Amino acid sequence: MIKAKGIAALKSKEALVPYSFERRDPKEYDVVLDIKYSGICHSDKHMTRDEWGFGAAFPMVPGHEIAGIVKTVVSKVTKYKIGDRVGVGCMVDSCRECAHCKEDMEQYCISGNTLTYGSLEKDGSTITQGGYSDVIVVNEDFVLRIPDNLPLDKAAPLLCAGITTYSPLNHWKTGPGKKVAVMGLGGLGHMAVKLAKAMGAEVTVLSGSVSKEQDAKKLGADYFLFTKESGVFQGNALRFDLIINTISSADLNMAEYFGLLKMDGTLVSVGAPEKPLSIHPFPLIMMRRNFAGSVIGSIKETQEMLDFCGKHNITPEIELIQPKQVNEAYARVLNSDIRYRFVIDMGKI
Amino acid sequence: MIKAKGIAALKSKEALVPYSFERRDPKEYDVVLDIKYSGICHSDKHMTRDEWGFGAAFPMVPGHEIAGIVKTVVSKVTKYKIGDRVGVGCMVDSCRECAHCKEDMEQYCISGNTLTYGSLEKDGSTITQGGYSDVIVVNEDFVLRIPDNLPLDKAAPLLCAGITTYSPLNHWKTGPGKKVAVMGLGGLGHMAVKLAKAMGAEVTVLSGSVSKEQDAKKLGADYFLFTKESGVFQGNALRFDLIINTISSADLNMAEYFGLLKMDGTLVSVGAPEKPLSIHPFPLIMMRRNFAGSVIGSIKETQEMLDFCGKHNITPEIELIQPKQVNEAYARVLNSDIRYRFVIDMGKI
Repeated sequence: MIKAKGIAALKSKEALVPYSFERRDPKEYDVVLDIKYSGICHSDKHMTRDEWGFGAAFPMVPGHEIAGIVKTVVSKVTKYKIGDRVGVGCMVDSCRECAHCKEDMEQYCISGNTLTYGSLEKDGSTITQGGYSDVIVVNEDFVLRIPDNLPLDKAAPLLCAGITTYSPLNHWKTGPGKKVAVMGLGGLGHMAVKLAKAMGAEVTVLSGSVSKEQDAKKLGADYFLFTKESGVFQGNALRFDLIINTISSADLNMAEYFGLLKMDGTLVSVGAPEKPLSIHPFPLIMMRRNFAGSVIGSIKETQEMLDFCGKHNITPEIELIQPKQVNEAYARVLNSDIRYRFVIDMGKI
Repeated sequence: MIKAKGIAALKSKEALVPYSFERRDPKEYDVVLDIKYSGICHSDKHMTRDEWGFGAAFPMVPGHEIAGIVKTVVSKVTKYKIGDRVGVGCMVDSCRECAHCKEDMEQYCISGNTLTYGSLEKDGSTITQGGYSDVIVVNEDFVLRIPDNLPLDKAAPLLCAGITTYSPLNHWKTGPGKKVAVMGLGGLGHMAVKLAKAMGAEVTVLSGSVSKEQDAKKLGADYFLFTKESGVFQGNALRFDLIINTISSADLNMAEYFGLLKMDGTLVSVGAPEKPLSIHPFPLIMMRRNFAGSVIGSIKETQEMLDFCGKHNITPEIELIQPKQVNEAYARVLNSDIRYRFVIDMGKI
């Protein structure tokens, strides 16, 4: 076994504390990573508080936005060598046999993929632990290559926030001539803006915080709509081809947002609220609109996203923190007091 | 003005009574129809009870499933001649200038199309009155041709129930190799079954009435799933490409139905409940599923549907009633006691 140091929630809803644990001995296709940086995702907070009712396992080392350097490779590894700059995202394995896995859609693995933390490994041996730690052992097929021009600290959040927004933008054919709106300007939202802009779309941020207008424009948005302004929804009816909803709240008047979509337009939720949304199908029926969801992306698409970010020099806006600041950072995440992603310097653990 | 006899709701929620009124004098592109048959659509009940909060106008002559014979044509009419077998559906005009009208999608007219009853005419002169009457005046562009082999009484419901189900089946590419499910086996549902089957799909009926299994099979369904059977949703997870929801109720556990969809599958609602649905995006997110809506179809698509029905000899199952039986029929519609569409014999008014 490999000794690891990390930060864990020992029980649901408790503060995170330093935690020593063991990683599995690497198997023949495994890569061992020195974790350098780990992003803090909003879902880490949901998971450590067991808010999605999955029956999470504790102690839990969160973290699925991992960037590091290859430390060891085992006999049959062909994709990576020692010293490579690599990343790990939200999943570390899948069944590899179902129809979805076979068509490079393992994020939708029918048997359920193995999440980077809080999942039982396929061999039933252990519960996975995430990136708030100094080392991780991952099968090479679930390791991503980080382009040389992207700094590792800034690359880390691409592994979740990046792919979670890239995948729906890509799937719903974002490009020149398309009008894309982004609901919410947080960790996911600010990546959606940068990516949609780089793909060539006209980009509009929809936000209830008027103070974010300047940032939205700086990040590349063409337009900003303050959603609390009177008449803003009526005045922008039928405007967008695609809306990416990054707001994890059930307190949204969805009919207003659907009204912003063109005929045949799609609103995609990438953040899951704790409670259901109240949705009247009328605005969907009346313009044949779609309400969809999307989760991360495949390994193949994640590599494509990283290469796209390398080519266009796209990285998130981050605030680098020390491991001991993680609880403070969580409080600030809850309070939306971060522009736009915390990344933990795991070299300092 | 043209004198018309009909059946109307004089006030919201009141029983329908015989009613004499006037139609506009035909304008140069108008066709005057002898109405022979008029179907009873579930939305007639919503409209005469003003349940959708549109602020309906009364007296209201409902009816938008109209089949009849051309009685008069005016000078510039080129599409029809006296004696033609024709139909009128849910709309009788649109702005003809917006992007949607220009691309033959006038059912989604941005200015709002003119509904067959309860709409203000584009010239502001009158409120339209529907098909529960003996005569109607309609612009030739909103008149449909009924194939010779389809009896007029049975053709009437195709103008709403037919096109409302044909359009989403067509838009979401129903055909050989596709698995389609139909929620609810009523006026719309039974048409969806016949149409999807004729398009070449494998068709499954999802119903909470086990007594409908035999009918479902007779109508052409390959499979029937009794939705109150324990384990039926889990046992059929990821099965369908497309689900057509014809159930106008908000009391559906939508997560269960979404779970029946394949990755990238779509559930389309064509019936609007009075209250919003409670929808958690998780089952959409987890398999990139879509929840959509669809309303009737364009005039072009409606003609295509009628020709398709002519070619495949598809008609609804109807119960022909006399005008005086309309209130009794409404009570039976409310009670789902009709297999599967009432059609009023308007020649007897």
